[in-house]
Amino acid sequence: MKAVVYRGAYDVAVEDVEQPWIQNPLDAIVRITTTNICGSDLHPYEGRAPMEPGSRLGHENMGIVVEVGPAVNRIRVGDRVSVPFNIACGTCRNCNEGYTSACLRANPSGHPGAGYGYPKMGPYPGGQAEYLRVPWADFNLLELPEGDEHESDFALLSDIFPTGYHGTELAHVRPGSAVVVFGAGPVGLMAAHSAMLRGAAQVLVVDHQPDRLRLAERFGAMPIDASQVDPPEAVLDATDGFGADCGIEAVGFQAHDPAGQEHPSMVLDNLVKCVRATGALGIVGVYEPEDPGAATEDAKQGRYDFVFGAAFEKGLKIGMGQCPVKRYNRELRDLIIRGRAIPSLIVSHEVPLEQAPEAYAHFDRRDDGWTKVLLHPAA
Amino acid sequence: MKAVVYRGAYDVAVEDVEQPWIQNPLDAIVRITTTNICGSDLHPYEGRAPMEPGSRLGHENMGIVVEVGPAVNRIRVGDRVSVPFNIACGTCRNCNEGYTSACLRANPSGHPGAGYGYPKMGPYPGGQAEYLRVPWADFNLLELPEGDEHESDFALLSDIFPTGYHGTELAHVRPGSAVVVFGAGPVGLMAAHSAMLRGAAQVLVVDHQPDRLRLAERFGAMPIDASQVDPPEAVLDATDGFGADCGIEAVGFQAHDPAGQEHPSMVLDNLVKCVRATGALGIVGVYEPEDPGAATEDAKQGRYDFVFGAAFEKGLKIGMGQCPVKRYNRELRDLIIRGRAIPSLIVSHEVPLEQAPEAYAHFDRRDDGWTKVLLHPAA
Amino acid sequence: MKAVVYRGAYDVAVEDVEQPWIQNPLDAIVRITTTNICGSDLHPYEGRAPMEPGSRLGHENMGIVVEVGPAVNRIRVGDRVSVPFNIACGTCRNCNEGYTSACLRANPSGHPGAGYGYPKMGPYPGGQAEYLRVPWADFNLLELPEGDEHESDFALLSDIFPTGYHGTELAHVRPGSAVVVFGAGPVGLMAAHSAMLRGAAQVLVVDHQPDRLRLAERFGAMPIDASQVDPPEAVLDATDGFGADCGIEAVGFQAHDPAGQEHPSMVLDNLVKCVRATGALGIVGVYEPEDPGAATEDAKQGRYDFVFGAAFEKGLKIGMGQCPVKRYNRELRDLIIRGRAIPSLIVSHEVPLEQAPEAYAHFDRRDDGWTKVLLHPAA
Amino acid sequence: MKAVVYRGAYDVAVEDVEQPWIQNPLDAIVRITTTNICGSDLHPYEGRAPMEPGSRLGHENMGIVVEVGPAVNRIRVGDRVSVPFNIACGTCRNCNEGYTSACLRANPSGHPGAGYGYPKMGPYPGGQAEYLRVPWADFNLLELPEGDEHESDFALLSDIFPTGYHGTELAHVRPGSAVVVFGAGPVGLMAAHSAMLRGAAQVLVVDHQPDRLRLAERFGAMPIDASQVDPPEAVLDATDGFGADCGIEAVGFQAHDPAGQEHPSMVLDNLVKCVRATGALGIVGVYEPEDPGAATEDAKQGRYDFVFGAAFEKGLKIGMGQCPVKRYNRELRDLIIRGRAIPSLIVSHEVPLEQAPEAYAHFDRRDDGWTKVLLHPAA
Repeated sequence: MKAVVYRGAYDVAVEDVEQPWIQNPLDAIVRITTTNICGSDLHPYEGRAPMEPGSRLGHENMGIVVEVGPAVNRIRVGDRVSVPFNIACGTCRNCNEGYTSACLRANPSGHPGAGYGYPKMGPYPGGQAEYLRVPWADFNLLELPEGDEHESDFALLSDIFPTGYHGTELAHVRPGSAVVVFGAGPVGLMAAHSAMLRGAAQVLVVDHQPDRLRLAERFGAMPIDASQVDPPEAVLDATDGFGADCGIEAVGFQAHDPAGQEHPSMVLDNLVKCVRATGALGIVGVYEPEDPGAATEDAKQGRYDFVFGAAFEKGLKIGMGQCPVKRYNRELRDLIIRGRAIPSLIVSHEVPLEQAPEAYAHFDRRDDGWTKVLLHPAA
Repeated sequence: MKAVVYRGAYDVAVEDVEQPWIQNPLDAIVRITTTNICGSDLHPYEGRAPMEPGSRLGHENMGIVVEVGPAVNRIRVGDRVSVPFNIACGTCRNCNEGYTSACLRANPSGHPGAGYGYPKMGPYPGGQAEYLRVPWADFNLLELPEGDEHESDFALLSDIFPTGYHGTELAHVRPGSAVVVFGAGPVGLMAAHSAMLRGAAQVLVVDHQPDRLRLAERFGAMPIDASQVDPPEAVLDATDGFGADCGIEAVGFQAHDPAGQEHPSMVLDNLVKCVRATGALGIVGVYEPEDPGAATEDAKQGRYDFVFGAAFEKGLKIGMGQCPVKRYNRELRDLIIRGRAIPSLIVSHEVPLEQAPEAYAHFDRRDDGWTKVLLHPAA
Repeated sequence: MKAVVYRGAYDVAVEDVEQPWIQNPLDAIVRITTTNICGSDLHPYEGRAPMEPGSRLGHENMGIVVEVGPAVNRIRVGDRVSVPFNIACGTCRNCNEGYTSACLRANPSGHPGAGYGYPKMGPYPGGQAEYLRVPWADFNLLELPEGDEHESDFALLSDIFPTGYHGTELAHVRPGSAVVVFGAGPVGLMAAHSAMLRGAAQVLVVDHQPDRLRLAERFGAMPIDASQVDPPEAVLDATDGFGADCGIEAVGFQAHDPAGQEHPSMVLDNLVKCVRATGALGIVGVYEPEDPGAATEDAKQGRYDFVFGAAFEKGLKIGMGQCPVKRYNRELRDLIIRGRAIPSLIVSHEVPLEQAPEAYAHFDRRDDGWTKVLLHPAA
Repeated sequence: MKAVVYRGAYDVAVEDVEQPWIQNPLDAIVRITTTNICGSDLHPYEGRAPMEPGSRLGHENMGIVVEVGPAVNRIRVGDRVSVPFNIACGTCRNCNEGYTSACLRANPSGHPGAGYGYPKMGPYPGGQAEYLRVPWADFNLLELPEGDEHESDFALLSDIFPTGYHGTELAHVRPGSAVVVFGAGPVGLMAAHSAMLRGAAQVLVVDHQPDRLRLAERFGAMPIDASQVDPPEAVLDATDGFGADCGIEAVGFQAHDPAGQEHPSMVLDNLVKCVRATGALGIVGVYEPEDPGAATEDAKQGRYDFVFGAAFEKGLKIGMGQCPVKRYNRELRDLIIRGRAIPSLIVSHEVPLEQAPEAYAHFDRRDDGWTKVLLHPAA
């Protein structure tokens, strides 16, 4: 079958690879109908996260179940499903508590948490391919209505819609909250959409790319252009001097200023300034425990200095980390079905799987309008 | 009347000062029966927090109401009361939400949060004195059973017992949790006691002072002597390799190694290592937004670098800041009354107010056995 | 001044009464700009709740502060304010915990909870008048933007918008929930609006009055006409056989069938049938501890039998009681200001205070289109 | 093998039955080391719940895994395990949300929730036997330390310790709470123990059997003898007139007065009287949706009338239903291991499986001292 294969920095190709098969009685094989390129795919793409050449990329997957192992008892062949990016055993302590993002058993390295097609997340090939093997299928798969309605909305259920929503959960967004989101990339936009769904009174989105700020407006948020104004000042102005109740980090360790200079603590510093005393921060932009390509010695070791003393003085709550997709995807699916959520507003391109290499290049350069790319295998 | 007055670094004296009077219709005047020296009193004492010479110290106060303003309608003359260290108006948004530690109105500087006898906490004299004026008395004062029973237990309700408890709340301590507390000073010991009261299965306390570790044992905790073993290793051993569920920081920005060298991020780094993925940290040791006396340029600006990337990877939750005493003091009072909590186990010395200067000196040097000092004015 | 005065069953009049004055240093006097007739005003109106002739009615009040007592320190003369229907001291244990609906001190009868112009709620005259005295003004009053914008939206902040919202809180409405609301009166409609604001995927509203069901649709809810279909069957159909996650009771003890026959347990029985195992019920329709006018001996003593065994088997959670308005009104105000909430959609009539008697009569007969009446004193 | 078999009302026998085998790839076979008689086993024993003659009883089971199906990947042969009384698939929506007590798939009848050896809970034989088949073993089984230490404590992890704890969770027991428990049977005593572990300031236990009240005292609770005093009066007295914060129902629909007369609403009425406004009730005593043997027509249909109007006026929260054991058993196990919980204090008798018939008879008659019986198969 065809799959997107990592060959080295800035080099991916669609190659013929071996088709997956049932390896374990709880596996299912999914024929992929839609698989997305994620911002975090760019970490290995840019050589910033170490990936073995020959690996298959892709952790945002959905499709149709074509085969199930003999012990699968809930999911059936023919089911249309969303595949959460986390692979979780469903029976360890962390899975029991809803932390599928920290499954203690799925990753043979012993590191909590596993996923498809990503460095350090275990030996699971990615799903930018015609077929994907899904372990512990009964636990991991979310069933979708049959047919092809809402395909591009449902495609966002495997990662970024729940991840953005997770940011709002970690940031304690409630009805009436004033929320600031840093980053209008796909995750930041999904956080803005989620904040509105949760009843936020105000959502402010900070970025410096005009096309992405326009999308923020479509979700009902107020855009703040960081290339034009000082974000903390703009947030204080917009909130009558109080500051936001909730702050969401959707940028990560590669934060850079409008001039392109990397400042790994820039967004954290700004968030502490923007959020009022007693507020909360949700950090879903990725910070790495080690980052050999970082600019500073500290950042190489995953040490980030920020205005922690000010955060203490404000009494902030901070939540962070990868999203346990299963905790949210059912409810978000239902919001899509009932017409209340339309995450696909951010989808800019839908192309055949074969065009993955060009799509990676455009998306990596943040070419104007390349917000989110969906790939469709031909099968 | 007599009061403990700050005269400069390492210099406090008991002096004659003007007695407080009702300045506002909602004030009460409390005759102090017990007032404690707090670890944070040592910040100005050591010249590490800028205090005006002539200021009165003391924010851990209790006593008998001797006068109330004309609009006071709940508290009565003769009531025995605990005085929370936070001064709160009771009617602003933060007070409404239970964040009396971030009252928006009590501190004329505009800084959220006010208190007695402490730098930057507003123009309120301390209570290491014969009398204290308490603003918004109906809201702030906690009534105690009449008489003098449990005096040294109740004395700890104004700050450190609730503060230690706040650490356990921020760290999400639940029945069955494995908890690690860094710091066996008064706040750390109160956190250990609180964790046991909340049903923790295991409480591990890290320090390097033998007298304090012995007290930790009296509260049912397991001591870890940081001068003998590597704390993260010891915590992993004690928790079957899982790590603690909950970590509590009760040390603060002046963290130092057993040799006395200051390392402001040492405890934060250790906590991230000790706590398992999906765990939570409660930080009640103080970190300052600026610290002119700090060792490094970063720490002077309240920037602390720590292994934030590892914290992200583990998906930790972090809560921090001053304790809103009113949120907890009624329940802790009731636990004392019913004989279930005995915080006074940590009280090492009870002396007349006049001996405050010597007591400050002993406590500041952490002389063996000087864990917690209660002062009794003569009145 | 003019005020609406209760003279006996089905008899209210606008009379000249003594103007209120500052009786306590924490009082404020509010010049009423808008005051609403509430469904619960109909309980005394119909003689179903015992009210002293000569009493002033009205607990849904807003206006401008014209005078404050000498100890008022937050609210100022000239402030535009919403007056929550609960009168709360702000300093008792229940107020501290946010239960202003169960204030232990405001009601001299000792009964927890006080309010304006209502039987058993204390000696506080109602606000269907030109002026109203507000005790503990700093604590009770919610400040509004100056001017007269959003007057009819803000008018609903004193009771029914928060009360409807309280129903959704008690029923654990979350993003993605399927919610059923029994009763499309003002409170039920506000519950439907609130459920949508909280991100419900589906809101189903059950009633048998077509005008009210049309309003439910305007808030995005799906109407279920109880005169045409069996409500539990319709709810199961609409939720793919699962049942609703959350059920809200907005009818109360005078529940009656489309033929007008009273069945005090009818709505409770239906809710248990409509809500799926593990779900939650929020009961904001009023049930009385005694009801001398009730049809059955049991109901006279406030004993209501319903299918409690089935509720146990489903493992339902049930929350109930009067709304603590202060817990929600700030956030709801902000949602109005930001244009996200438009509760005034339910306002059908705005008339001068003088027309109160006719308005009561229409509203009590549930005349077509008389959903919600706002009264404006002339002052 | 030997098993306890139901033959009819008041008639159980130890008979030879077919040994269980692996029927499904996710099954495990457990050799039972300890299996308890539960109070709810008495419902079928007394003919109050319809059970098929020939059925095997027993849902409180623990033992050693002797065989696993080919898809079992976590649990291993030789593991010592506790078997929760709920049988749960681990992959349906309710299981995902932690409601293993309402599993949507394990009970072929379609009724949410399944269990061993109990009417209406599915076709699963009980574990009062030498061997037991456990479906979805990886999800359902809780691993215990090897050996035989704490056997009689761990034996209570399959049902009544978590069930008592569930009562405290539903009743919102927090540190400092005043708690009243109705019923000093095994579940009530476990609720009292749990309330203490959660930091309750006061636990009051109401019953009329002296042997059980003495056990309540051993857990640190204060006994209230309902045959001597009026329970609500005694509770008000003990709580300075406030009433309890939390009330727990551990009696159920067969509540009877000291004279033996059945009053299905007696305990509910008393709880509403005992608990203060804003409080919460946790109902873990069983109420049935239908009870053909009930005394009144209403109770036969599962309709129970109680002082619901008073509950509304107090604004109570009510939670109810079967316990999802998995939500609590790991933490309770750890509290046993660390020596903080000693639930086995209630175990009065440990006898060979063969003596089950006599043990049932004693326990059913509530013979003095027969609080809790553990059966040990000979294997």
